[in-house]
Amino acid sequence: MDAPYLLYYWPTIQGRGEFVRLALEEAGVAYQDVARQPKTGMPAMLATIDGAQTPQAAYAPPVLGHGDLLIGQSTNILFYLGKQLGLAPRTESGRLWLNQLQLTIADWVAEVHDTHHPLAIGQYYEQQKAAAALRADDFRTHRLPKFLDYFTQVLQNNRGRGGFLVGSKLSYGDLSLFQMMAGLNYAFPQAMARLAPRYGALNALHDSVAARPNIARYLRSKRRLPFSEEGIFRHYPELDG
Amino acid sequence: MDAPYLLYYWPTIQGRGEFVRLALEEAGVAYQDVARQPKTGMPAMLATIDGAQTPQAAYAPPVLGHGDLLIGQSTNILFYLGKQLGLAPRTESGRLWLNQLQLTIADWVAEVHDTHHPLAIGQYYEQQKAAAALRADDFRTHRLPKFLDYFTQVLQNNRGRGGFLVGSKLSYGDLSLFQMMAGLNYAFPQAMARLAPRYGALNALHDSVAARPNIARYLRSKRRLPFSEEGIFRHYPELDG
Repeated sequence: MDAPYLLYYWPTIQGRGEFVRLALEEAGVAYQDVARQPKTGMPAMLATIDGAQTPQAAYAPPVLGHGDLLIGQSTNILFYLGKQLGLAPRTESGRLWLNQLQLTIADWVAEVHDTHHPLAIGQYYEQQKAAAALRADDFRTHRLPKFLDYFTQVLQNNRGRGGFLVGSKLSYGDLSLFQMMAGLNYAFPQAMARLAPRYGALNALHDSVAARPNIARYLRSKRRLPFSEEGIFRHYPELDG
Repeated sequence: MDAPYLLYYWPTIQGRGEFVRLALEEAGVAYQDVARQPKTGMPAMLATIDGAQTPQAAYAPPVLGHGDLLIGQSTNILFYLGKQLGLAPRTESGRLWLNQLQLTIADWVAEVHDTHHPLAIGQYYEQQKAAAALRADDFRTHRLPKFLDYFTQVLQNNRGRGGFLVGSKLSYGDLSLFQMMAGLNYAFPQAMARLAPRYGALNALHDSVAARPNIARYLRSKRRLPFSEEGIFRHYPELDG
C-alpha cells in the first residue's frame, strides 16, 4: 500500500506511541501524527477508540491507520510495520522471536508505569505517593535489573552479528530498546548510573541507535516530544532511591 | 509440522498457560504439559527461561515448543497456534484484529494480577494487603466495567454472525474470553454478580464455550487445574467489595 501512515496517539506525550514513531522515523516514510493537527486531530484520534463510531475500535491508543487497516496495540502495530518497513526478520520464526521480545518490552513498560501509578490508573501520582515509593523501590531493586539482565543475555546470545537484538540487522526491537534505555535514564538517573557498568551492551545499543541518521535527525526535531511527568517515564527524584 | 506440541508452564496453576491449554484442548491435538511430568518436567521447563542453556530463552513461561520452534509470551504463542490449529481468521487483517484483542485481554490479565500484587511481584499478598484493597477497589469500580464494556461492544459490533468475538467462527479469542469470565467469577463473585445483568453477551459467550465438547471434556478432566490462591485469579473476599 502506498497510502501514508496515520498515527493516532495522545498529542503531548511520547508514551506508547513513541515506539511506533521511532519505527516510522527510522524508515523515513510519510506519516501524519493525527492528534497533533489543530482542531480536527483530537476528534479523529478519539473516534478510533469509540466503538459506536468505529467497528473495530481499539481499547486505547496508539492506533495506526494504513489504507483500510486500523491497527491497535503497540506490539501489534510494530508487528505489522516490521514487515512493511523492513524492520523485522524475513522468516516467520524470526518475526515470532522479535514479537516475543517486543511483548517483553511492553511488559517492562507497564511495570515502569506502575511505579508512579500502583493503586489507580485514573488518579494522580500525588494521590498514591506512599505506595509508589514502595513499588518503585521494588522495581529498582528487583525488576529493573531482571529486565536489564534478560536483554543483556539476549544481546550476548546474538553477539558477533553487529550488536543487534535479533539477527544481523536493525529491527524495531532495537529502536524500542533504545527508547527504554533513554526513558529509564530520564526517570531513574541515579539507579541507572549505578547499574550502568553492568550493562555496557545495552548502553552501546542505545548510543548506536541514537546515532543513526534518521533517528538523530528526529531526536533533534520538534516531532520528538520531550520526556515529562505526564508520560510513562517520569522523573520523580523520590522514586529514584 | 506433525511434531507434538510441548507446553512449558508452572505445573500447579492455570495462570497464563491456561490460555494456551484451552487452544490445544479445543483443537484436540496431542500435547505434553511438560512441567507436570515427574522428575524431568520442571528442569526442562526452567531450561526454557535460562539464557545460558537456551539461545532464545523466554523472560517467563509459558513457552511452547513445536519442532524446532520455541515460542514465548502467551499472545505470541496463540498467534502462532491460531494459524496452526485453525483458531484464527484466514486473512492478515483478521489475524491482526484478533491479535489486538488478545493483547487487550493480556493487559486485563495483568491488571487482575495487580489487584493482589500492587506493590511487589516477588512478595506475598499478605505483605501488601492494604494497598491491594485500594487497587482492587479501583479495579472493581473503574477498570473491570471498562474492560467488560469494551468486549461487549466488540461482540455487539460483530453481532448476527454467531456470537463470536471475531468473524463467524470460533477463535482463540473466544476461548480466552471464556477464561477471563470464569476467572473473574471465581475471584470477584459479588462484583461480577452485580455486573452480570449488563453483560449478557459475555456470559452467553462463556456458556457456549464451556459447552463445546472438547472444552467440556477438558474442564471435567484432571488436566484442568483448579483455580486457587496461587494463580492470577484469586478469591480473597476482602478484595471483592
